[in-house]
Amino acid sequence: MVGGGQLARMTSQAATGLGVGFRVLAGSAAESAAQVSAGTWLGDYRSLADLRAFAAGCDVVTFDHEHVPGPHLAALEQDGVQVRPGGAALRFTQDKLAMRERLTGLGVACPRFAPVRTIAEVEEFTDGSWPVVLKAVSGGYDGKGVWVCDSAADAATVLANMGLAHGAALAGGFGVIAEEYVAFERELAVLAARSPHRQGAVYPVVQTVQRDGICREVIAPAPGLAPGRAAQAQELALRIADELGVTGLLAVEMFETPSGLLVNELAMRPHNCGHWTIEGARTSQFEQHLRAVLDLPLGSPAMAAPVAVMANVLGGDDADVYDRYIHVMAADPAAKVHMYGKPVRPGRKIGHVTVTGDSEDWGDGVHADPAELADRARRAASYLRWGKEDGD
Amino acid sequence: MVGGGQLARMTSQAATGLGVGFRVLAGSAAESAAQVSAGTWLGDYRSLADLRAFAAGCDVVTFDHEHVPGPHLAALEQDGVQVRPGGAALRFTQDKLAMRERLTGLGVACPRFAPVRTIAEVEEFTDGSWPVVLKAVSGGYDGKGVWVCDSAADAATVLANMGLAHGAALAGGFGVIAEEYVAFERELAVLAARSPHRQGAVYPVVQTVQRDGICREVIAPAPGLAPGRAAQAQELALRIADELGVTGLLAVEMFETPSGLLVNELAMRPHNCGHWTIEGARTSQFEQHLRAVLDLPLGSPAMAAPVAVMANVLGGDDADVYDRYIHVMAADPAAKVHMYGKPVRPGRKIGHVTVTGDSEDWGDGVHADPAELADRARRAASYLRWGKEDGD
Repeated sequence: MVGGGQLARMTSQAATGLGVGFRVLAGSAAESAAQVSAGTWLGDYRSLADLRAFAAGCDVVTFDHEHVPGPHLAALEQDGVQVRPGGAALRFTQDKLAMRERLTGLGVACPRFAPVRTIAEVEEFTDGSWPVVLKAVSGGYDGKGVWVCDSAADAATVLANMGLAHGAALAGGFGVIAEEYVAFERELAVLAARSPHRQGAVYPVVQTVQRDGICREVIAPAPGLAPGRAAQAQELALRIADELGVTGLLAVEMFETPSGLLVNELAMRPHNCGHWTIEGARTSQFEQHLRAVLDLPLGSPAMAAPVAVMANVLGGDDADVYDRYIHVMAADPAAKVHMYGKPVRPGRKIGHVTVTGDSEDWGDGVHADPAELADRARRAASYLRWGKEDGD
Repeated sequence: MVGGGQLARMTSQAATGLGVGFRVLAGSAAESAAQVSAGTWLGDYRSLADLRAFAAGCDVVTFDHEHVPGPHLAALEQDGVQVRPGGAALRFTQDKLAMRERLTGLGVACPRFAPVRTIAEVEEFTDGSWPVVLKAVSGGYDGKGVWVCDSAADAATVLANMGLAHGAALAGGFGVIAEEYVAFERELAVLAARSPHRQGAVYPVVQTVQRDGICREVIAPAPGLAPGRAAQAQELALRIADELGVTGLLAVEMFETPSGLLVNELAMRPHNCGHWTIEGARTSQFEQHLRAVLDLPLGSPAMAAPVAVMANVLGGDDADVYDRYIHVMAADPAAKVHMYGKPVRPGRKIGHVTVTGDSEDWGDGVHADPAELADRARRAASYLRWGKEDGD
């Protein structure tokens, strides 16, 4: 797996369980996955030579991020390396304009969009109706590369900054797209898996809660979602995975609006919206990704509990989380704390907590209140961050 | 953790989740845990120098087996190393005579026993009533070091072989104990955890099924066990853990007989009878052992499903399990296969499969038939062994 972050770290745990050989290409031995995996290979994913050396020992190469340059992916594929997902599919996670054009071509509902190079083009797109969302075509994550602009002045600032930060990309083509600002009711996500044998599996639709562009919590299944709409979302994810030729996981982030579902983002790897599956589903997303890219039969995506809630642990100002860690374990012995071994920086994802529906009382029916579970998960995660409920 | 076997391998997965530093002392890089853990340290657990060098980098030292010599444990403790469980407690897993004497002293019901050095002493013990069980006082595991003897001639052969194999131990004292052959109804096991803070936690009582002295399957909770007897077994495990000063896990293997429970064996580490907890309990035994030895608050031992069944995968004659692995995944997508990365040898534990109670139908009550689950787990495990149901 190319990438040494927490996704590779959690994938390494799944690989250990499956008994399959696993190797990560990490930038340094201090990275999250490199700390724990015996199969750490140090190198730079931006270097074709490093990628080739890494791939030489692998039956299949996969990724914990979408930042490997497209030409490198193509070169590896020409070498005969099994790159899964392949470069042709990964392109739609690397280039938001290509993704929007392809999805629209498939008839998939998306926010209205247009590539923009100048403030005049942004103003033409908005036609006086603000706010508008500007997005970097590539390189964004966790809210970075996405700007909600309330005015032409805001948009001009973003374009100017983009010009500084991504001059080369801008010179070569469209570096920014404008999108309508969607007044959504809530955000949903669906995680599907697809294998080279074209076997598909899809997890229950979840609700995601974002703040400042960062995922804060995930509730599975999405509370109160109409069964018809849930099925529609799952079918959509499976269809996109098939049409785009995805091998491995596909995460589809959506807006639920009064008029239906709009696709926001795609990812083709284990995704934050699926961390709950470690405890909450029969097959964790990490195991499922490995099964899919290795062309093993896919595992059951069924829930292992009536409800699961995951909350991200974000870094706070105080780097020492040890006391809080003990407090959370003592306060909620059934909360599952996952720490990533990452240095604490404010706002950075350093771990997550999952709470699953009550099972103490099997004989007497299942008790699980999503709101109560969400409160427990949020409390644990926020305590790990600040030592108190964070106020925003 | 001293030891590089599958218990250390699965503990490393738990350490990764908790985000605690983890290092194994393995005999070679090919051992099960060494294959996957970045924290592998090569050395010999029988060498005090190797143990000291290993312990120098650890806050706490624990074990995946009970074979570290007692004098080495004492030396490490004198060095100031936090050895958990400590040598005084571990002695009762290393010396079956000491264990029997101590448990009997505590009033815990055990099979009748006596140390024996000669065939005359065996005959005096049996008083004409055969069969009798002979056990090596130390060094046994997975049925090794335990012999059921139907006659004095059988017993004489065992003693003669023991004299050859363990001459030094026999010269120094009792190398063998005789025990009554218990005509039990079934075998049960209880897993408890105890921390240095004296916090205790106990898992539900399970039924274990052994063949040829090797654990084949574990059903949690033990089907049809009277609630009073289950509580008695759990209290017994917690009491033994406390009386013996255990830090970490204590596994208590018991016989259920018409007249009550008899304690058969003790172990102070993650144990085969607790593998089901990875999917079947809120806190896996591996995480619980780490929490206990690190003096973190213990996790909930509650079940995460109404029923869980684990079956061991034993090596067969054919070293290539890959096709069978795919077949099992395709045949039962909800079965959790854990492979240990160990070379296949006939009869050797090379993995396990866990199946948990049905949750497809949460809204409509929980469906879980222990017999059906056991059949699924057994089928998966035996297919991995032989490609068909094994006949014995």
